[in-house]
Amino acid sequence: MDYQRKTIGILTSGGDCPGLNAAIRGVAKPAVELYGMKVIGFANGYRGLMEGHSIELSSSDLSGILTEGGTILGTSREPFKQLVKNQDKIDQMIKNYKKFSLDCLVVLGGNGTHKTANLLKQHGLNIIGLPKTIDNDLYGTDFTFGFHSAVDIATEVIDRIHSTAQSHSRAMIIELMGHKAGWLSLYAGIAGGADIILIPELPYSIDNVINKLNQRHAMGKKFSIIVVAEGAISKAEAKMSKKQFKASRSDMTYSSIGYKIAKQIEEKTNFETRVTVPGYQQRGGTPSAYDRVLATKFGTYALSLILKSDYGLAVGITDNVVSARPLEEIAGKLKVVPKDHMLIKSGFALGTCFGQD
Amino acid sequence: MDYQRKTIGILTSGGDCPGLNAAIRGVAKPAVELYGMKVIGFANGYRGLMEGHSIELSSSDLSGILTEGGTILGTSREPFKQLVKNQDKIDQMIKNYKKFSLDCLVVLGGNGTHKTANLLKQHGLNIIGLPKTIDNDLYGTDFTFGFHSAVDIATEVIDRIHSTAQSHSRAMIIELMGHKAGWLSLYAGIAGGADIILIPELPYSIDNVINKLNQRHAMGKKFSIIVVAEGAISKAEAKMSKKQFKASRSDMTYSSIGYKIAKQIEEKTNFETRVTVPGYQQRGGTPSAYDRVLATKFGTYALSLILKSDYGLAVGITDNVVSARPLEEIAGKLKVVPKDHMLIKSGFALGTCFGQD
Amino acid sequence: MDYQRKTIGILTSGGDCPGLNAAIRGVAKPAVELYGMKVIGFANGYRGLMEGHSIELSSSDLSGILTEGGTILGTSREPFKQLVKNQDKIDQMIKNYKKFSLDCLVVLGGNGTHKTANLLKQHGLNIIGLPKTIDNDLYGTDFTFGFHSAVDIATEVIDRIHSTAQSHSRAMIIELMGHKAGWLSLYAGIAGGADIILIPELPYSIDNVINKLNQRHAMGKKFSIIVVAEGAISKAEAKMSKKQFKASRSDMTYSSIGYKIAKQIEEKTNFETRVTVPGYQQRGGTPSAYDRVLATKFGTYALSLILKSDYGLAVGITDNVVSARPLEEIAGKLKVVPKDHMLIKSGFALGTCFGQD
Amino acid sequence: MDYQRKTIGILTSGGDCPGLNAAIRGVAKPAVELYGMKVIGFANGYRGLMEGHSIELSSSDLSGILTEGGTILGTSREPFKQLVKNQDKIDQMIKNYKKFSLDCLVVLGGNGTHKTANLLKQHGLNIIGLPKTIDNDLYGTDFTFGFHSAVDIATEVIDRIHSTAQSHSRAMIIELMGHKAGWLSLYAGIAGGADIILIPELPYSIDNVINKLNQRHAMGKKFSIIVVAEGAISKAEAKMSKKQFKASRSDMTYSSIGYKIAKQIEEKTNFETRVTVPGYQQRGGTPSAYDRVLATKFGTYALSLILKSDYGLAVGITDNVVSARPLEEIAGKLKVVPKDHMLIKSGFALGTCFGQD
Repeated sequence: MDYQRKTIGILTSGGDCPGLNAAIRGVAKPAVELYGMKVIGFANGYRGLMEGHSIELSSSDLSGILTEGGTILGTSREPFKQLVKNQDKIDQMIKNYKKFSLDCLVVLGGNGTHKTANLLKQHGLNIIGLPKTIDNDLYGTDFTFGFHSAVDIATEVIDRIHSTAQSHSRAMIIELMGHKAGWLSLYAGIAGGADIILIPELPYSIDNVINKLNQRHAMGKKFSIIVVAEGAISKAEAKMSKKQFKASRSDMTYSSIGYKIAKQIEEKTNFETRVTVPGYQQRGGTPSAYDRVLATKFGTYALSLILKSDYGLAVGITDNVVSARPLEEIAGKLKVVPKDHMLIKSGFALGTCFGQD
Repeated sequence: MDYQRKTIGILTSGGDCPGLNAAIRGVAKPAVELYGMKVIGFANGYRGLMEGHSIELSSSDLSGILTEGGTILGTSREPFKQLVKNQDKIDQMIKNYKKFSLDCLVVLGGNGTHKTANLLKQHGLNIIGLPKTIDNDLYGTDFTFGFHSAVDIATEVIDRIHSTAQSHSRAMIIELMGHKAGWLSLYAGIAGGADIILIPELPYSIDNVINKLNQRHAMGKKFSIIVVAEGAISKAEAKMSKKQFKASRSDMTYSSIGYKIAKQIEEKTNFETRVTVPGYQQRGGTPSAYDRVLATKFGTYALSLILKSDYGLAVGITDNVVSARPLEEIAGKLKVVPKDHMLIKSGFALGTCFGQD
Repeated sequence: MDYQRKTIGILTSGGDCPGLNAAIRGVAKPAVELYGMKVIGFANGYRGLMEGHSIELSSSDLSGILTEGGTILGTSREPFKQLVKNQDKIDQMIKNYKKFSLDCLVVLGGNGTHKTANLLKQHGLNIIGLPKTIDNDLYGTDFTFGFHSAVDIATEVIDRIHSTAQSHSRAMIIELMGHKAGWLSLYAGIAGGADIILIPELPYSIDNVINKLNQRHAMGKKFSIIVVAEGAISKAEAKMSKKQFKASRSDMTYSSIGYKIAKQIEEKTNFETRVTVPGYQQRGGTPSAYDRVLATKFGTYALSLILKSDYGLAVGITDNVVSARPLEEIAGKLKVVPKDHMLIKSGFALGTCFGQD
Repeated sequence: MDYQRKTIGILTSGGDCPGLNAAIRGVAKPAVELYGMKVIGFANGYRGLMEGHSIELSSSDLSGILTEGGTILGTSREPFKQLVKNQDKIDQMIKNYKKFSLDCLVVLGGNGTHKTANLLKQHGLNIIGLPKTIDNDLYGTDFTFGFHSAVDIATEVIDRIHSTAQSHSRAMIIELMGHKAGWLSLYAGIAGGADIILIPELPYSIDNVINKLNQRHAMGKKFSIIVVAEGAISKAEAKMSKKQFKASRSDMTYSSIGYKIAKQIEEKTNFETRVTVPGYQQRGGTPSAYDRVLATKFGTYALSLILKSDYGLAVGITDNVVSARPLEEIAGKLKVVPKDHMLIKSGFALGTCFGQD
């Protein structure tokens, strides 16, 4: 059949994230084994496409990768802001797309990746984007793969902290990933039963945090669990200019928001405070069953689009159905936690403090 | 306010399932702490309601239970078939409902539980049902809590088996729960990269299974992973009467379908075959983050219905939105895997054998 | 230096076991990287040595394997009983040993492997044995690597079963690996708080098992956890001839001892009984931290012996010190659980039933 | 019998640590159930003994605690330095010991706990100490319970970081617990295959660390894993007075050594550096199978000493045998990693950098 002649390019871009290999496999294994297509993997994200650094993926390359963290293709960050000013790099990608006779390029990534994907679409390339990020902040999909794996790990961290918090008057801070969106902290915070959850979408007042600590202490609770997204900001900071904000954080260059809040709590109360920074743990390990299933769905769905020569799309899951929409509809848009999200309401009902009045 | 006067009964019924305590907490913690309601927990399912065996749940009863497996209320199986013939028991439940001055009874359970819930509704009681089962076979909701926890455990089992399958010509059978529906085997099978998945919805032919084994052997693969739902049936069995079917399984009374298939494979091939039966592991352990979140949503949503005196409903999640529908719409209906489910298609694309031609 | 000229052969033999790659790395990485030796890996155990099927291990072959289950070299079972009658195979191994100019052959395995190792020593080859088996039944070492990983997994299974056992009068049977020795069942049973532990070294009476169940029931306990080693035997069976024993188990060819005991319990009591057979799970997954450390110690210690041309030894850990003893001292000897082992005493003190009076 | 009349006091003191409940159960369950003794649990460590804050432990208090993290008795830090100057507090403990008619007091703790235990022994009380700490720095025992659980968690953290480290030129720092002793970092570092391990016993030079990073980079390695004990010190700091040292760390009051080293690396190289601080995770969660077994052995062994009225002893495990020695022999002594420890040698052989030349 005609579709068996197609050549697919594939690359993974941006930060590490569990499920990348599962998604690659979902696209490439049936493409190679069932349809006899040629699948070219580009190394280290868009950089590999620029440099023509690639391998043709065989059946055996795709075997045993479903459960592996990281990405067999490697990844890199190629900031869109710089790329868009550098037409040479763009031309180089277009040239290589043609040189490899690609019928389509599948890109796996987050916000930056999809902006570049849309740019390449505008230059006439056939692109399909798959939504990956542990931050879940990609517009146009209810969930990205990688997110639930990160929630699992962060929840496990909170669980362990919970089980140790035996001493009196101790505040345990867990700083989770999420610069612009608080999805991970919200989900893991609710799943772990955190007492206080601070996310970028809901600027906090340290006084509200301390009130909650005092209130729990008054109720005889021995400890409090505070989940802080790394992008959490105070109400004062939320009103600052970018420059002011940067200055306000200058002391944190080599530390973290968790330590900053710990310092504030210890200065204003007599609660001993301890900080945990799970860091890159949250991007690591084997993808959860949920993410393997989701990434596999995304991958095989992308291939079904390719079979129909349906390009220029971002794959996602909306209302529990895998579907796709034009890249330009989603590129450059951030999906943050809406203030009336059901889990925030659930949190309020359960007595969780979000640093608000 | 008036709603603060309400008295809620709550019970858990049927098989164990992770997330029961998270759901109880989601209903009861805000009811007690935020709204000052009275929440009566009945022990061991409907049996506790019959016998009036109950405790009033306090704040401290609800503390620390979010992460616990099992149920703080206990559970029992009270088969609907027998109950419906036993008006005494039904009367006893109605009597106790009134005796405890309940405004509403929240029941957490699967198919049987919801049938009884609907029966009690027909007798005029205010009932809300929450969908729990690791089998995910409850009609009216895309997912039940407990399901994803079981998928996680089953996938982990498959992963471990995968990493040991070094010897030549070995077939590894993993028998998972699921008498009537293959959801768990389908999800875990895809997540674990099983080569063969046998579920009740797709009756298998042992010849197709063996063909797949031979085909993999011919390709130089050292081993094959076979996931079998405990309710898997052969094509021949699918055509049998109930009586015939029972007779065909008489040798399995104290064994399992996994061993039966192992025997067939060893008789018809020279593959060494090994059987793993994870059994009640799949119902055990702490609920996954996913299920804690889902159960918390269900619980707090149920409470929001109670606040509005909106009764007679089964809570569920459809198209990624938590909602409710009349109990009579869902009672007695089973949700099995549709033959054109996206994961079955993904499986076919990836070369998974479902025991079909 | 002279020792840098050495050529080491290495192979893994017998059943799969976590830690094999960690041990290979412990021997080979410093040999190659620090001492510039040549390390030849033989494929699939002694079979690879017979057939000359091998690869020279490079730095990159040894990178990233520390955490991997299974073995990068493959394994096979080459029963000693048959081998000793087949001088051709032995000659073939000796021939290849010489052909590859080996200064030493390192074999990783259990009892069978060490018997063959000793045989090769008797034929004049320089052999070092490393003790691997999840059964921990190898003589001459307090612990083999793989054992603690299997204990971790088995304990996790018991934990999960524990958390689900909510219903009345239920007996949960968990059948663990261990044909001749009960180490795994003893350790995991104690770690998991099993109520009853049945191991080959202590033949059980089903009446004692049932008495214990009844006794717990009388105390109001809802359930009992029974850990059964796959090699557990009844007192009656312990007195049988091999032939009689085989006949007594003929109905179990494709089932397991767990189901047999379940049947007996259900026939003699009204406890519902459920069986879990973790199977090859126990050999799977990444090695535990303990086993990675132990395997690394064994591997680097083996290399230190090679540096001193100290051969014909079995490495082990005794009194918490890694050491070695002549292969002939340990070959053919089984290490079973002594009846007065401290954990059996601890079990008795804690009320654990071992099926004895 | 006479010993059935005995009354045992028990308390847990110092930092949280997995296995405390397993050890309590090991002492108290047989004491209560088998020997009919009375066991008094004091709340929150020595503080409970001072204040007479206690409960008598019943069978049901001891049921289901084997697997639980934390301690059912609560704990507190009661620094020895202050206690020894406060005769009132000591007198109060002696008074309560007598008031409760204790025949023996069992204390579970680390270095501080055992110093106080020895002090009470000198005042004529019958004391038995059980060795708990995740730091493994208690003299007189090869291993404390809690240690291996912490190693498991720390190793899992390293594993996850490993699987994400895909980008070029990145240094991943994982800061583990261990103020005075590097046991945890050494074991987890070796188990996780860390490239660099910095422990208090081997003061580091940042230049050696950076050399190792450069060397790996030159070999084409994409990343390096650096495990740092929180008590790691540089060679310069090792020569400082206490006062000087404190001043050198003044900028770290609310941050951590991991961030300090990250800053140094980023200033001196162009490697992106990321920091993970697992923090109290390392004290949390259910005890590992290893620690449950060890704590159970310690507990039941302590009881066997009590049955023989053998007091004034610290229980431990030496050369793989559980035994006891006089409290005064171990009190006040720290067990640090010897510079010629086998794992350090293994590390050197495998190319691990310890920050030394």
